[in-house]
Amino acid sequence: MDSRGSRFKRNVLEERAAARLSDAGASSESGAAAVRAMMHASLVGVDSHGIRLTGHYCRMLEGGRLKRRPELDVERRGAGSAMVSGDDGLGHYAAYRAVEVGMEMAREAGIGAVGVRHSSHFGAAGAYALAGAEQGFVTFATTNTDSMVALFDGARKFHGTNPLTFAAPVPGSRPWLLDMATSSIPLNRVLLHRSLDEPLPPGTAATPEGNATTDPHAADMLLPLGGVDYGYKGAALAGVATLFSALLTGTTLDPDFIPMYGTADISTPRNMGHFILVIDPDKFAGRAAFAHAITHYLSSLRASPARPGGGPVMAPGDREWQVMAERERDGVPLDPDTIAFLGL
Amino acid sequence: MDSRGSRFKRNVLEERAAARLSDAGASSESGAAAVRAMMHASLVGVDSHGIRLTGHYCRMLEGGRLKRRPELDVERRGAGSAMVSGDDGLGHYAAYRAVEVGMEMAREAGIGAVGVRHSSHFGAAGAYALAGAEQGFVTFATTNTDSMVALFDGARKFHGTNPLTFAAPVPGSRPWLLDMATSSIPLNRVLLHRSLDEPLPPGTAATPEGNATTDPHAADMLLPLGGVDYGYKGAALAGVATLFSALLTGTTLDPDFIPMYGTADISTPRNMGHFILVIDPDKFAGRAAFAHAITHYLSSLRASPARPGGGPVMAPGDREWQVMAERERDGVPLDPDTIAFLGL
Repeated sequence: MDSRGSRFKRNVLEERAAARLSDAGASSESGAAAVRAMMHASLVGVDSHGIRLTGHYCRMLEGGRLKRRPELDVERRGAGSAMVSGDDGLGHYAAYRAVEVGMEMAREAGIGAVGVRHSSHFGAAGAYALAGAEQGFVTFATTNTDSMVALFDGARKFHGTNPLTFAAPVPGSRPWLLDMATSSIPLNRVLLHRSLDEPLPPGTAATPEGNATTDPHAADMLLPLGGVDYGYKGAALAGVATLFSALLTGTTLDPDFIPMYGTADISTPRNMGHFILVIDPDKFAGRAAFAHAITHYLSSLRASPARPGGGPVMAPGDREWQVMAERERDGVPLDPDTIAFLGL
Repeated sequence: MDSRGSRFKRNVLEERAAARLSDAGASSESGAAAVRAMMHASLVGVDSHGIRLTGHYCRMLEGGRLKRRPELDVERRGAGSAMVSGDDGLGHYAAYRAVEVGMEMAREAGIGAVGVRHSSHFGAAGAYALAGAEQGFVTFATTNTDSMVALFDGARKFHGTNPLTFAAPVPGSRPWLLDMATSSIPLNRVLLHRSLDEPLPPGTAATPEGNATTDPHAADMLLPLGGVDYGYKGAALAGVATLFSALLTGTTLDPDFIPMYGTADISTPRNMGHFILVIDPDKFAGRAAFAHAITHYLSSLRASPARPGGGPVMAPGDREWQVMAERERDGVPLDPDTIAFLGL
C-alpha cells in the first residue's frame, strides 16, 4: 500500500461513491450495498477492491451489464438452504441479502446456506463473512471469478483467484477474519512489479507456456497457492470455491466468464455465482462454550513465540484491524483517477 | 510409497484388522468403522493413515484411552445442526455416524452440519467427505490434530497438520475428492528424508527456532502451506479446521492434546473434535443442474493443456482413484511391523 498522496475521510468517500452510483442509475439499496462492501475493502487495506471500483461499476451500470434497479428474488429450498437471484444488479446487494437470509435460517436451523445466482462482481468476499460474524455467526463466503490462475502443471489460465473467506465472532473484540485468494499473489502484484521492473517472488506466476517465472514482464498468469511443488493444493482450493459458487448454483464457470475488464462487451450480464454459509455457534456446543474456546485459542496463538527477525505472530484479521484503525484515524489513500472520478 | 515388498488383498486385510480390533475389545460396530476408514486410506495410497494404524488403535483400546464399547449420543440442535458424542471410542465410528446424521438432515433441510466431540483419531478425513459424496451429497470433513506445524513467523509447534477435505458426487464417475493437510508435507516425509539423508523441499519445515530449513535432521516442526512467503494462508486454513472441529464443538485445542504417540499416558481420553458438513445439491440449483455443471467443469479442467514436462492436468481425486484401481488389482503394500502384527 502506497501511503503517500491524499487521504480522505470515510464519510466523504461513502457520500461521493453513493452519489456517483446513483448518477449511473443504481437504486439506492443496491448502491448502498456496493458502497458498504467497497468501504470495507478500503478500510482494511484491500485497495484493489475498495472505493476505486466505483468508476468501474458506474461504467457497467451505464453499459447495461449491471441492472440499475435489480429486484432480488429469495427462494427458500429447505430449512437451511436458499437461492438468491441477484437480477443482474450489483453483486454486493445480492450477497448482503444472502447473508441476511443465511442468518435468519441459522437462528432456527443452526445453519443457513445460500447460493447466489445472476450476480456480478461483489468486491472483497471477506465483507460478507464479516457481516455474519458481526452478528454473532461463524460465516463462510466465496465466489469464483475470471480465469487468471494456472492449474497445477497447467499451461492455461483456468481458475480465478477464487477467494475463501471465513469469519468468526470473538467476545469483546473484532472478529477473526480470513479473506484469502487461492493464488499466492493477486494480478495487481504482477502489474506493480512490472511497473517497478522488480522480480516476483518465486512460484507465484508463470509464462504463457505454464513455466514458473520471477520476471514480471514474462508473467502471463498466476500460479496457485503452494507454487511449483504444492500448487495442487491451491488449485484444488480454487476448485472448492468454484464447487460452492458455481456448481451448486448453476452459474458461470471461471473460464467461461465474459471478462470483468478489457472487453468490448459491457452490456451482457455475467451470471456470476457466490455462496454464503452461516452457522450459529449456539446450535453446536453452545454460545458460551464457543466464546470460551475462541478466546482461549486466540490468546494461545498470539502468545506463541515468533522466530528471530519475524513476527509478531498474528491471528487472521489482526493486520486488517490495525490498518482499519489507522485509516479510520488518518483517512483512506486514493489513486489520482479515483480522486478525479469522485470529484475530490 | 514403497511398492516393493509384500502386497495383500483387501478382504484379507479387512478380516485381519477387524479380528485384531475385536481381540483388543472393540465392539464390532466401532471396529468395523475403523477398518472401513483405514481401508479407504490404504486403497487411495495414504499409507500413514491406513491399515498400519491397527496396532496403534489396539494399544489405545488396551490402555484405556479408547473405550472398547462406546455408545454414541446424537443430539439434534436444529433442523440442520447436531452434535455427536463419540463416548471416547474409535473416532471413525463417531465420524461415520456424523455423516449419516448430516445426510439425514440435508435431505430435508438442504444442509446438515454435525459437530463431533469426545472422539479420538479418525484416520484420513477424506474417508468421511467421500462417504457423503458416494450418497450424492457435497461433503466437507475436518478435524484438528496434535501440534506439529509452526504459525507463520512462529517459533513453536501450534496447529496440527489439520486437514480440509471436500468431496462432491460426479455422474457416472467416482467423486471429486480433495483431502489436503494444511501443511505442505506430513511429518512422515521429514522422517523419511531423515532416514535417507536427503534434503527437504524448501519452505516445508523449520528448526526449533522457527527458521526454515531443508536439513531433515535439523527440522523440528513443519511449516504451513505457502511456506516462508505465504504461510499465513496455510496457518489460517489450519485455524479454519480448528474453528470448525474444536471451537464450535468445545473440544481440545491442537496444543492442548495429549500426544497421539510417544507419551506414557495411553489411558486418558483426548476429547478430540471433528466437523462434518453435508449439502444436498437438490436444495440449491437442483440435482440436474449440479450434475451438468460438475461434468462440464471436470471435462474443461482435464482438457486444459499441461506445461512442457508437467502434467497431465488432474482433478482432485484422479490420482487417488488411479492408486485405488492398482491396489484393488495388485493388493495393498504393507510394512513388516504391520505384517507381523496382523499375522500375515
